[in-house]
Amino acid sequence: MKNIKEECGIFGIYDTGMSVAKTTYYALSALQHRGQEACGIAVNLNRDIFYHKDVGLVGDVFTDDILNSLQGTMAVGHVRYSTAGGGGRENAQPLVFGYRKGQLAIAHNGNLRNAKELKHEYQVTNGSIFQTTSDTEVIAYTIAKARAESTSIQEAVCKAMNVLKGSYSLVIMSPQKLIAAKDPWGLRPLCMGQKGSSIVFASESCAFDTIGAKFIRELEPGEIVVVEKGNVTSIKEHCGKEKSSLCIFEYIYFARPDSVIYNQSVYDARVTAGKILAKDHPALADLVIGVPDSGLAAAVGFAYESKIPYTEGFIKNRYVARTFIKPTQEEREIAVRMKLNPLKINVEGKRIIMVDDSIVRGTTSKRIVTLLKEAGAKEVHVRLSSPLFLHPCYYGTDIPSKEELIANTHTVEQIREYIGADSLGFLDSEKLESIAPNAECGFCTACFDGSYVI
Amino acid sequence: MKNIKEECGIFGIYDTGMSVAKTTYYALSALQHRGQEACGIAVNLNRDIFYHKDVGLVGDVFTDDILNSLQGTMAVGHVRYSTAGGGGRENAQPLVFGYRKGQLAIAHNGNLRNAKELKHEYQVTNGSIFQTTSDTEVIAYTIAKARAESTSIQEAVCKAMNVLKGSYSLVIMSPQKLIAAKDPWGLRPLCMGQKGSSIVFASESCAFDTIGAKFIRELEPGEIVVVEKGNVTSIKEHCGKEKSSLCIFEYIYFARPDSVIYNQSVYDARVTAGKILAKDHPALADLVIGVPDSGLAAAVGFAYESKIPYTEGFIKNRYVARTFIKPTQEEREIAVRMKLNPLKINVEGKRIIMVDDSIVRGTTSKRIVTLLKEAGAKEVHVRLSSPLFLHPCYYGTDIPSKEELIANTHTVEQIREYIGADSLGFLDSEKLESIAPNAECGFCTACFDGSYVI
Amino acid sequence: MKNIKEECGIFGIYDTGMSVAKTTYYALSALQHRGQEACGIAVNLNRDIFYHKDVGLVGDVFTDDILNSLQGTMAVGHVRYSTAGGGGRENAQPLVFGYRKGQLAIAHNGNLRNAKELKHEYQVTNGSIFQTTSDTEVIAYTIAKARAESTSIQEAVCKAMNVLKGSYSLVIMSPQKLIAAKDPWGLRPLCMGQKGSSIVFASESCAFDTIGAKFIRELEPGEIVVVEKGNVTSIKEHCGKEKSSLCIFEYIYFARPDSVIYNQSVYDARVTAGKILAKDHPALADLVIGVPDSGLAAAVGFAYESKIPYTEGFIKNRYVARTFIKPTQEEREIAVRMKLNPLKINVEGKRIIMVDDSIVRGTTSKRIVTLLKEAGAKEVHVRLSSPLFLHPCYYGTDIPSKEELIANTHTVEQIREYIGADSLGFLDSEKLESIAPNAECGFCTACFDGSYVI
Amino acid sequence: MKNIKEECGIFGIYDTGMSVAKTTYYALSALQHRGQEACGIAVNLNRDIFYHKDVGLVGDVFTDDILNSLQGTMAVGHVRYSTAGGGGRENAQPLVFGYRKGQLAIAHNGNLRNAKELKHEYQVTNGSIFQTTSDTEVIAYTIAKARAESTSIQEAVCKAMNVLKGSYSLVIMSPQKLIAAKDPWGLRPLCMGQKGSSIVFASESCAFDTIGAKFIRELEPGEIVVVEKGNVTSIKEHCGKEKSSLCIFEYIYFARPDSVIYNQSVYDARVTAGKILAKDHPALADLVIGVPDSGLAAAVGFAYESKIPYTEGFIKNRYVARTFIKPTQEEREIAVRMKLNPLKINVEGKRIIMVDDSIVRGTTSKRIVTLLKEAGAKEVHVRLSSPLFLHPCYYGTDIPSKEELIANTHTVEQIREYIGADSLGFLDSEKLESIAPNAECGFCTACFDGSYVI
Repeated sequence: MKNIKEECGIFGIYDTGMSVAKTTYYALSALQHRGQEACGIAVNLNRDIFYHKDVGLVGDVFTDDILNSLQGTMAVGHVRYSTAGGGGRENAQPLVFGYRKGQLAIAHNGNLRNAKELKHEYQVTNGSIFQTTSDTEVIAYTIAKARAESTSIQEAVCKAMNVLKGSYSLVIMSPQKLIAAKDPWGLRPLCMGQKGSSIVFASESCAFDTIGAKFIRELEPGEIVVVEKGNVTSIKEHCGKEKSSLCIFEYIYFARPDSVIYNQSVYDARVTAGKILAKDHPALADLVIGVPDSGLAAAVGFAYESKIPYTEGFIKNRYVARTFIKPTQEEREIAVRMKLNPLKINVEGKRIIMVDDSIVRGTTSKRIVTLLKEAGAKEVHVRLSSPLFLHPCYYGTDIPSKEELIANTHTVEQIREYIGADSLGFLDSEKLESIAPNAECGFCTACFDGSYVI
Repeated sequence: MKNIKEECGIFGIYDTGMSVAKTTYYALSALQHRGQEACGIAVNLNRDIFYHKDVGLVGDVFTDDILNSLQGTMAVGHVRYSTAGGGGRENAQPLVFGYRKGQLAIAHNGNLRNAKELKHEYQVTNGSIFQTTSDTEVIAYTIAKARAESTSIQEAVCKAMNVLKGSYSLVIMSPQKLIAAKDPWGLRPLCMGQKGSSIVFASESCAFDTIGAKFIRELEPGEIVVVEKGNVTSIKEHCGKEKSSLCIFEYIYFARPDSVIYNQSVYDARVTAGKILAKDHPALADLVIGVPDSGLAAAVGFAYESKIPYTEGFIKNRYVARTFIKPTQEEREIAVRMKLNPLKINVEGKRIIMVDDSIVRGTTSKRIVTLLKEAGAKEVHVRLSSPLFLHPCYYGTDIPSKEELIANTHTVEQIREYIGADSLGFLDSEKLESIAPNAECGFCTACFDGSYVI
Repeated sequence: MKNIKEECGIFGIYDTGMSVAKTTYYALSALQHRGQEACGIAVNLNRDIFYHKDVGLVGDVFTDDILNSLQGTMAVGHVRYSTAGGGGRENAQPLVFGYRKGQLAIAHNGNLRNAKELKHEYQVTNGSIFQTTSDTEVIAYTIAKARAESTSIQEAVCKAMNVLKGSYSLVIMSPQKLIAAKDPWGLRPLCMGQKGSSIVFASESCAFDTIGAKFIRELEPGEIVVVEKGNVTSIKEHCGKEKSSLCIFEYIYFARPDSVIYNQSVYDARVTAGKILAKDHPALADLVIGVPDSGLAAAVGFAYESKIPYTEGFIKNRYVARTFIKPTQEEREIAVRMKLNPLKINVEGKRIIMVDDSIVRGTTSKRIVTLLKEAGAKEVHVRLSSPLFLHPCYYGTDIPSKEELIANTHTVEQIREYIGADSLGFLDSEKLESIAPNAECGFCTACFDGSYVI
Repeated sequence: MKNIKEECGIFGIYDTGMSVAKTTYYALSALQHRGQEACGIAVNLNRDIFYHKDVGLVGDVFTDDILNSLQGTMAVGHVRYSTAGGGGRENAQPLVFGYRKGQLAIAHNGNLRNAKELKHEYQVTNGSIFQTTSDTEVIAYTIAKARAESTSIQEAVCKAMNVLKGSYSLVIMSPQKLIAAKDPWGLRPLCMGQKGSSIVFASESCAFDTIGAKFIRELEPGEIVVVEKGNVTSIKEHCGKEKSSLCIFEYIYFARPDSVIYNQSVYDARVTAGKILAKDHPALADLVIGVPDSGLAAAVGFAYESKIPYTEGFIKNRYVARTFIKPTQEEREIAVRMKLNPLKINVEGKRIIMVDDSIVRGTTSKRIVTLLKEAGAKEVHVRLSSPLFLHPCYYGTDIPSKEELIANTHTVEQIREYIGADSLGFLDSEKLESIAPNAECGFCTACFDGSYVI
């Protein structure tokens, strides 16, 4: 549990049937963990694009009536957490617009590094106007501009990728084609699947499990996949030009544990991290617990390796996703307990190893350790399945500025003291990549070591 | 009562106080008759623009909470009926966007003739993208483009007006200025007023009455008025270059009777039309009635001139503005009666002169005459306070195509027979302009005589 | 225009078809002027009662989906203005409940005088509990109690009427019967109609016009009409036992002008009142205007009799039925103007006769006269189509207490001065009943003369 | 995971502060697992009761505005799952009503056995009317009736308990008192706590953890606790007269694992059940998994006892609590997967022990086993932490009729075959009570063995 906000999730389907909106609905539900602020679906019916999008969860925004009104043979969908741009309704995606060659719908996950520069350039050179504050509009202009010197939309996307710097996984729907593209570094996941004769794209494979689609493969960094008239072709012009750099935090925190990215199970990566922790940072304790939900798998791994029994340490309230109540200062503790209550029966009088994914500012960790101590834990040994955050992320993860990261202002011992733990251990930077031994990709680990790939 | 849909209403306020959103709310309520589909308010707080807009009536879209969140020292507002572009939420105005010089908010009433051409040009030349289907986005691009070669926003608006062909009354809010502009033909109304130290602009003067502002004057065709740091300046570069051509249907139908346009009272224009009808198309009858609401004033004029007593012929249900029910075919008659019920006590056994504003397809007139006959009217003499529609409108009025206009396919006698009237009279084309003797402007009468001004 | 709030409207239909809910929907729309706070429809499908009710206008509360879910062969409907009991959702009607003989649905218009006593008695004697604050629950208990000693529901209703004191028009739906009942004084209207093989009941005949039903007759005071298996029977045990006493204010203000009550047209009654005023309280003036909507017909009558031309004096904004905005003190004048704007062109420099229906506290009249004077009226002669209110109403009209009625604390001259009129005339009490010469009933005129019938 | 629906949750607070509504809000959030259909809060301000209730989750129904409008010094709250009565808005609780001694608000968890008889009796004897279909209205009448022969509300409650047969935990708010009562069998939990000078009551102790209140004790079966002017008194007239019979399914499934009932931790009871299963029904396997959420603790216990590693077998989607989509038949499998996705990486090629809480009809178990097999599980050994259901529940648990319970129509071997498991084991009836060794109460185990206590 932590304050880093998840990013967006995207989905696309090219089908010959007519239930693409409903399939997209189910897929977006499976990707909801990647963004809870807004969502949308655009469909293509006889080359015309229709859409519905709004702020809210997938289950709140879409009704049977709305889905039934979205008939078509292709669709793109999006769940949004606002990494760049505000949370308003105007920033909901997919972004649908008309340009010189008809309509396009774009769903985007990522963060451009040169969005500001491009925006300024387009405004000055082309008199462009920007109605949203999201990067996606910059991508739209870049593609629209590139289309002038291209013979096809895929060529325009390919040309646009020369200009766009940063992380972007895209699903784009044109009047006749469905196009998926991943930035040359491969910072954000995007995979391809198949269901019957339909081709599907999704941020994570768990969306395929939900809709009963077969996983085909992860897109390569820089790859563009084009689906047209049922044929799938791949453009690899941008492939292999940059260092493969999947955000390693996808394994640690963002992705759903049941997803597989570049052949590496997310769950297994977390279990492995827990095992490494158990070896490198053992502790004398009675029980291992995880902080729900992202710490659970690592706790299972820690328990397995250490032979210390695993148990549940907290009950998470599953019904408080939405609340219109702003807690006052004195209610803040209540608001936390409303979401997470320690299992006194398990922790009372015990020496506890508490596995969490990371520490950002330290305040959340401090609060959780306090909950355990108040519930009677004799000792609380905090183990983190990632190294300490030292650097901000410029590729779509909501990690705060350097000054706010506790590891930049406190020594490890000071952090331990601040959060009230009896010991503190975290994954060594050098072992970070070993949590994903099966991953057929390189990693971006900039937030831990400052090596920015772009 | 008729099927021609009203157009949009716009409002702007430059103030030093902080209640501009609420003042705009009241003004938009007064302009609600010009558009019931969507509405919005944008405010300027310390050079930043914030806005709220949605589909629905002003009274439904805005709450105290929302208005209180819209603090600022300038505002523009809009009520929309979709003359061009669909009715979706994305077409609600004001249109707010960022461009090379910061943010702009535009509220627009009118219809461009060259929107399609400009859109295409911008897409091809500048790689522009269009996220709405409204003309306003075209205006936005034109201004943004012109800004590159201008030293101020007002200069850009002035340059843009060289390019824009069609009807447009605009209120534009920039970081520091409030700008009102009217097309060189002056097709749509737009007037200026003052409340204390605030300058206000509105489609119709009735908005000023509501907010207690003083009417100053109607903008000239082609005029641009700039309010900055409390100073009002006028740019008249486009003035006097085109034939002054106010849509005369504003007097007959669109505008609220209590508005004054170019020094001509709308109510008085209608009364005058009724008096002319009484002279030119008299009838032996017991009573004069008007079809609510637009036919009432002309009926009063007819009664006055003819000395035949005026009375009410229909009761209009004031509560059925909104209904989610789609009547089935057999319920259609009920749905009409739900809105309009003849006053049997008044019409039974009587010879009735029924004054309405116009005939489009003839179906509505037929239905209303039938209602009166079923209620026992012995004779129904239909009198129209406008000539017969013969031509479509390209400047923002929702008049259908030539083939659908009954006057193009039927003789007057055939129309009379079709609608079931005992006699039919309408305003002679030559006398049309005499209904507005005080109007300090020329008129567009293209829908009646085909003389298109652009 | 005045502050006395309208009462409720009720409707019932016994049908063999399956569209009773939709027919009730249209009928309630026609009765919406009798109550805008809440509404509801209950249907009977195979002896089971289903219902939907909520706060809001008929057009807001019901959708096609909801109406389609309300299938049945009988229905009762209600629009509520809260004369007794608060405005909460729990007070929405029809009241549906189970009792010893199955389910009942009751729609009620009126006000019991002995509600408090009965409530107390039932609580003490029978341990009754009250979940609403409306009189209707008291009626429900009274009928349920009477059912014990009756062989049929209609007998129970008849017995209950021995106990209930006050005004009540009721439509009651039992598993097999539809029953309409009117209090022995006949204080509130209730009429019967027919559409095909269906029998319908409504507060006012305008509901029949809307749904295309034929008016049969007004129920007699004290009459109970039972519809069962298509047969209509009448129980007249309570008829003729009390003085017939229709609330005369129904003609003056409550009822829709196109309704006919006891053979008397509402519109005609108002015109007649205007004519009497013109004879008894003439004035030298240029124009006659009415205060919308209830003053219009009387103004037409005044103009007819006085030969002074009629015109419109105000424009009423038809779109501000609903607003979520609470005006601050300084906005109060704006809020009034938002609803009603004087037609300056008509009143400026003129001597005006302004016809309204009544004066309660005087504040509204004062405000309207002020509007006219500000618009330039040279003189304003106020004429009221009713006598002065001197006494509160205990039968369902929201007339305030004696002290608040201006006529109890001011002389006529003082009232004139207070409201700023140049002269003030009102209907003489003795002539009150002559406004309804065709009415086949007596009247309750207690609010004017203090002669309470119960 | 199973189809037995949870029951209601209740809460009450007697305070001297003014934030009772917000405290109740947080407490109800903690009790949300006991009912997700409707909720409500009633407060007592100077002896008057105000309330808000509606269908929906606590987080959807209440906003800051609504909570702020609910000022008072006492409150009762309710979350509802409809065990008896339908799910309509009218059945939302607390039930607030007026009776001979003022107002009462009642929140009820449980199910009366003699509701129908009492309802009929009250209808016949007292002419009672029933506006809801919930048992709570019957309780209200019983108390109101008893009040006639009592000198206080607590005496009335005590007398009412002579009449009421079935399960009921109640929190009742009168003008001056807050009263909690539990049926003489103690079928449903209800406990008392303290926060500062406030006394609180809740269905489960987890609500106290959330609001930071101290747990005092579980109410005894039959106990009535009265809080008045800050004093707490207890009436034990009904205590010890019936066999103590807490529904043992509270430990197995209903209650939140972090609650403690009668001194027995719910979590520990589940772990114990898992341990017993491991001893009595071992299996050769690679991994132990639990079906979220209720099977997790038992799985932890099974793993601990068996030394077979525990891991997570499924990912539960936390965001699909609400959906407006009705899946078609072919989408049903998708809808299941949307909620629960097997962790392929963990189960593939493995022999799995899958711990769930119970089997009702067998369809859900079959579906889950299938999911595991499709994910590649080599063997699936199903272990249930409760005996087989053989009998319906009449005390508030939504267990279906005998014929629908698979254990009544299938042998154990047939069940195993039907659900597709490789082996099937369940808790022996005789060992059932040993899962709660610390529980200071007896149990109702009727659904397993048919020994109904009432």
